Amino acid sequence: MHTLTVQTHRRNEWIDITPRVAEVVRRAGLKRGLCLVYCPHTTAAVTINEHADPDVAHDVLTCLARLVPHRHPDERHAEGNSDAHVKASLLGASVLVIVEGAELVLGQWQGIFFCEFDGPRSRQVLVQTLASA
Amino acid sequence: MHTLTVQTHRRNEWIDITPRVAEVVRRAGLKRGLCLVYCPHTTAAVTINEHADPDVAHDVLTCLARLVPHRHPDERHAEGNSDAHVKASLLGASVLVIVEGAELVLGQWQGIFFCEFDGPRSRQVLVQTLASA
Amino acid sequence: MHTLTVQTHRRNEWIDITPRVAEVVRRAGLKRGLCLVYCPHTTAAVTINEHADPDVAHDVLTCLARLVPHRHPDERHAEGNSDAHVKASLLGASVLVIVEGAELVLGQWQGIFFCEFDGPRSRQVLVQTLASA
Repeated sequence: MHTLTVQTHRRNEWIDITPRVAEVVRRAGLKRGLCLVYCPHTTAAVTINEHADPDVAHDVLTCLARLVPHRHPDERHAEGNSDAHVKASLLGASVLVIVEGAELVLGQWQGIFFCEFDGPRSRQVLVQTLASA
Repeated sequence: MHTLTVQTHRRNEWIDITPRVAEVVRRAGLKRGLCLVYCPHTTAAVTINEHADPDVAHDVLTCLARLVPHRHPDERHAEGNSDAHVKASLLGASVLVIVEGAELVLGQWQGIFFCEFDGPRSRQVLVQTLASA
Repeated sequence: MHTLTVQTHRRNEWIDITPRVAEVVRRAGLKRGLCLVYCPHTTAAVTINEHADPDVAHDVLTCLARLVPHRHPDERHAEGNSDAHVKASLLGASVLVIVEGAELVLGQWQGIFFCEFDGPRSRQVLVQTLASA
């Protein structure tokens, strides 16, 4: 298991961590298998989406903010960040990517994003590789 | 593969199953690897979120009810539970957690929840461990 | 790794790929393990939901269209398909299913769907099996 540290700079922000995950996979020398990218936080997530045009991340974040507004009057959780917990469950705590020849098998436009929903904070991402039989 | 039975008590409810999944992993004696927690139902899900404060689960469920109302007039599915099917796909049928030393590697505030969206019912959760090479 | 080609026919459409994934698993002869079904596109997804009644897929698609409207005025991404990118992250790029005796272990009503959100297009789905120790 490898731990990456990610510094976020805004309350809501996607950070492209593809090169860092690819580097872990390359160093592990995994010929064939899977790579799990795991977020150990409950107000953040990881997702796979287009990383060629940064406007995509912007548009997804804007849409999520419309769907899940900050500080809704029905909230009970005292920290005032229930929107971030909702987004964490909607996007999910992990993504799984196929590995072949020590390289991530991603689609042409796909990148792996750390999704901050209650930043800015210093965060961690766990990367675990698994060889296929 | 291990099967857990979960009894739910309300139409919408999150149940913390972390101790039961941890027990399966401990008994399996898995040194390093992954643990898949899988929901075989289409009107329920599993998710990872904060389990320290039960208000978090309450707030997420309240937000999901706002986003996906019960018995929307556009529904065609005759069972009247299409909201539960939507929530099942939004949260997902499984979560994957890293295992080290026969213990789940979860973040400080993370727990694993069974998410009932069309209860009360008796449900099942499948737990499968996978050793890393 | 096995690649399936999926031809979609509408902008938003779910296609049941369960028989094709089951065939890959059967041919791989995997006794015990996991099967990853992975979508390498950023305007599509894969999900697990009920495939007995096609009205379920219809209702989920209708609900997603209400939540994430096409061509929202706040969008920046020039391709005009940001709704598809949002749906891709909400549903996720992959599903993971347990395999026993070269068969997928799915719940009674569960099927695996390829979820098109920006079709019609010719798409690919990657299927990777992983043996358990």
